[in-house]
Amino acid sequence: MSTEAATHAPADDPQLTPDGRLRHLLSLATLPRSLLEPLLERAERYLTPLGERPARDSALKGRTVANLFFEPSTRTRASFELAAHRMSADVLNLDVNMSSRTKGESVLDTILTLQAMEVDVFVVRDASAGIPAFIARNVAPHVSVLNAGEADVSHPTQALLDLLTIRRRKPPLPELRVAIVGDIAHSRVARSTAEVLHTFGVGELRLVGPPDLLPAEPLVPGAMLVDDLARGLRDADVVMALRIQRERFREMEGIPDPEQYARQYGITRERLRGAHPDAIVMHPGPMNRGVEIDGDVADGPQSAILEQVTNGVAVRMAVLATVTETLIASGSGR
Amino acid sequence: MSTEAATHAPADDPQLTPDGRLRHLLSLATLPRSLLEPLLERAERYLTPLGERPARDSALKGRTVANLFFEPSTRTRASFELAAHRMSADVLNLDVNMSSRTKGESVLDTILTLQAMEVDVFVVRDASAGIPAFIARNVAPHVSVLNAGEADVSHPTQALLDLLTIRRRKPPLPELRVAIVGDIAHSRVARSTAEVLHTFGVGELRLVGPPDLLPAEPLVPGAMLVDDLARGLRDADVVMALRIQRERFREMEGIPDPEQYARQYGITRERLRGAHPDAIVMHPGPMNRGVEIDGDVADGPQSAILEQVTNGVAVRMAVLATVTETLIASGSGR
Amino acid sequence: MSTEAATHAPADDPQLTPDGRLRHLLSLATLPRSLLEPLLERAERYLTPLGERPARDSALKGRTVANLFFEPSTRTRASFELAAHRMSADVLNLDVNMSSRTKGESVLDTILTLQAMEVDVFVVRDASAGIPAFIARNVAPHVSVLNAGEADVSHPTQALLDLLTIRRRKPPLPELRVAIVGDIAHSRVARSTAEVLHTFGVGELRLVGPPDLLPAEPLVPGAMLVDDLARGLRDADVVMALRIQRERFREMEGIPDPEQYARQYGITRERLRGAHPDAIVMHPGPMNRGVEIDGDVADGPQSAILEQVTNGVAVRMAVLATVTETLIASGSGR
Repeated sequence: MSTEAATHAPADDPQLTPDGRLRHLLSLATLPRSLLEPLLERAERYLTPLGERPARDSALKGRTVANLFFEPSTRTRASFELAAHRMSADVLNLDVNMSSRTKGESVLDTILTLQAMEVDVFVVRDASAGIPAFIARNVAPHVSVLNAGEADVSHPTQALLDLLTIRRRKPPLPELRVAIVGDIAHSRVARSTAEVLHTFGVGELRLVGPPDLLPAEPLVPGAMLVDDLARGLRDADVVMALRIQRERFREMEGIPDPEQYARQYGITRERLRGAHPDAIVMHPGPMNRGVEIDGDVADGPQSAILEQVTNGVAVRMAVLATVTETLIASGSGR
Repeated sequence: MSTEAATHAPADDPQLTPDGRLRHLLSLATLPRSLLEPLLERAERYLTPLGERPARDSALKGRTVANLFFEPSTRTRASFELAAHRMSADVLNLDVNMSSRTKGESVLDTILTLQAMEVDVFVVRDASAGIPAFIARNVAPHVSVLNAGEADVSHPTQALLDLLTIRRRKPPLPELRVAIVGDIAHSRVARSTAEVLHTFGVGELRLVGPPDLLPAEPLVPGAMLVDDLARGLRDADVVMALRIQRERFREMEGIPDPEQYARQYGITRERLRGAHPDAIVMHPGPMNRGVEIDGDVADGPQSAILEQVTNGVAVRMAVLATVTETLIASGSGR
Repeated sequence: MSTEAATHAPADDPQLTPDGRLRHLLSLATLPRSLLEPLLERAERYLTPLGERPARDSALKGRTVANLFFEPSTRTRASFELAAHRMSADVLNLDVNMSSRTKGESVLDTILTLQAMEVDVFVVRDASAGIPAFIARNVAPHVSVLNAGEADVSHPTQALLDLLTIRRRKPPLPELRVAIVGDIAHSRVARSTAEVLHTFGVGELRLVGPPDLLPAEPLVPGAMLVDDLARGLRDADVVMALRIQRERFREMEGIPDPEQYARQYGITRERLRGAHPDAIVMHPGPMNRGVEIDGDVADGPQSAILEQVTNGVAVRMAVLATVTETLIASGSGR
């Protein structure tokens, strides 16, 4: 795969300041490697051996982070909340009722109100596409917006923690074969992770799933669509199982039920033998054990699933620090 | 209007200590200007230019503020929570289920329990009249109670932020014409704001709305009841639109539906031309855009709506600091 | 009663480290007096006269306490949250939806995920028996688990605060007659409190209630089962009323309704006259006034109910400090 995408960021990327610094984190599709590399390095510095106290930083002292979750999420919210606490920020948790957003105006009024209360960073999760970018377009110059999961479109901090996990465990990315297995067509994790793996020049990227759950086109140039699990896993260095949305099985025709899915695409110990013997197994969580992944794989020696979680807090700390520094450097911060 | 009310506070005002300091904030009806003036000045010192870091103060370090919301409210809760954080308090959020208060005793048991956990300040919101005063009568001498919205009776911190907003933007109050537009009869905001404007000697106060939503008597001496919007707005320096409760439209006869209300009493750009050219427009939020206020007015150059929000945090910080100082000065504090 | 139980802790008690320090707090049944005594003394040092500022300690600075409540509880959650704040910990509140735990695996995945986010202490409340111990068996060596209420089995911090309250108000325990009144068979409070009173050698322990709500065997050796309230209260130094679960009355046959219960077993002022004139009255809260206890008893001069609440925060602070020191001392802490 080419690393072309990594060499130039669109000058008008709404995530960047005019001088090219990261101000919002909305999508990884357009962010160059040069911008993400220092962020990953910073995240790595925030990692401490398990059993030692987690890193703390005063970079956000006196600042306020609002977790604005229009869609519920225990673990992503907890990860951002702990990251913000450990960066010394004040944290405001708002689980916003859907009914209060019959109009897009309500979302904007909520944001502008919180901004007037001097919220510095909005962490936004929403089931509709476009909300984080919409908010980013409307906030004041000293405010940042972080996408914490957007419809089936984007989940950039998840992709960054996936990348960090792979880098810490495996040889350089251009030498690796990565297989993402699941409902590729509707997964924000698959999309964001594919984007960042492409940017960092992954050796081979396979998007694996039932034909009806594969997108019409590969998510990024050079990726392969594979509907045969055995072929998708063959000699893979990284196997990432996606969470299956049980709702979807009920909604769509031609889609297998969870039991059928598990029989055909669930990652079992036996199937994993087809991958490289040192392959690591990943999952964004929460897992449906026995469906997309078997318990003995999730808990087995090849699993990197809990490392993903630990890396997730570190990545979010690094993102919070990075956007805060951007605002200070660009003179709109404080 | 006379400023008579401002010159004497009832000696037995339950909000005051025997030596006349502010201990609870329940209602503005009886509080003299001499008591509120330093509070507003302190709030003003907590204001920083947007883009600079918000002010912080250690006045409540080691103290605990409990947000006890028997009625849900995202923005008022967030405002009090941020104010308490910025005053260095510990904050406990309790969204209390209605069903657990079948008896008034339950409310009191909850309060006394939290007091025994060493809560210092209770921020109370309730849909029934009298609950904040009831709580204030029952807490220990070292505890303060702040009313964060009480039925249709009182919302004192909202009124103080309204007053602060007007003072920062307009000539002295005795020179001003203020129009409050909406469901005057059932609005705690209208009532509290009218009270404090009266105390500070507003030039002219007009309470404007459909005949069925006007109270039988003006809320304060000297205020005018006006059912004609054009007349109510004429040459007004401040136009405050109230939030319309859609529920009420369904419940009451003789009350127009929201569309009718918007046609007759909604603040539009055109209607605003009848007010003073420099008039500011206010709204306590959250807004029903297109009903009581048009979006282009809310977002227009005359809008002071977001300043109200910013001033709200500062006012609440000042209230927290003031009641804490009272307790220390009176020897019951700590 | 013998204090036999106090003299030896089972070497394989899962709550203890190999060198016998308290790491988890799951149940008081097996914990020796020698281990609990310093914990109570520490709790006492955290008590300050009401009106003075509560004690603070930096023992948990940089550590994270997760309140994981699978069963809702306003007061116990608030008590643990304030205790953690006053020990300088970061606090994460998680009210976990039951539906997300169709499998026991889900609970474990949640715990391991939070542990990977570097949570140090789990405060767990659950309606099923065995969950806190299950979690304790599965966490990493540097993590502690505190039981905040487990089915009808155990509520150890409640029992410790009960003991602390009795010790501070009454002569030494071996001289005392304690009566616990209510649904003894199904009360985790009765069970844990009986256990710790036995460990500390209470003079006489009476478990009082309707025959259908008494267990088949006394909860601890030497305790008496009494179905006659007058006899149960006679000359008692401590009278502890339990909260009656109204649900249970509907579910079970042969159980009186709340009104009947109140008539026969409610603690009234008149009935209390049968106890020792200096008897104290306790209740774990929240109270059903007029059912298991009359309002004038709850609020009367013999009531120690609010002291229990205050002591509860101190006990929880002491528990947090103790398990944290254990981890540091055993080299698995940080």
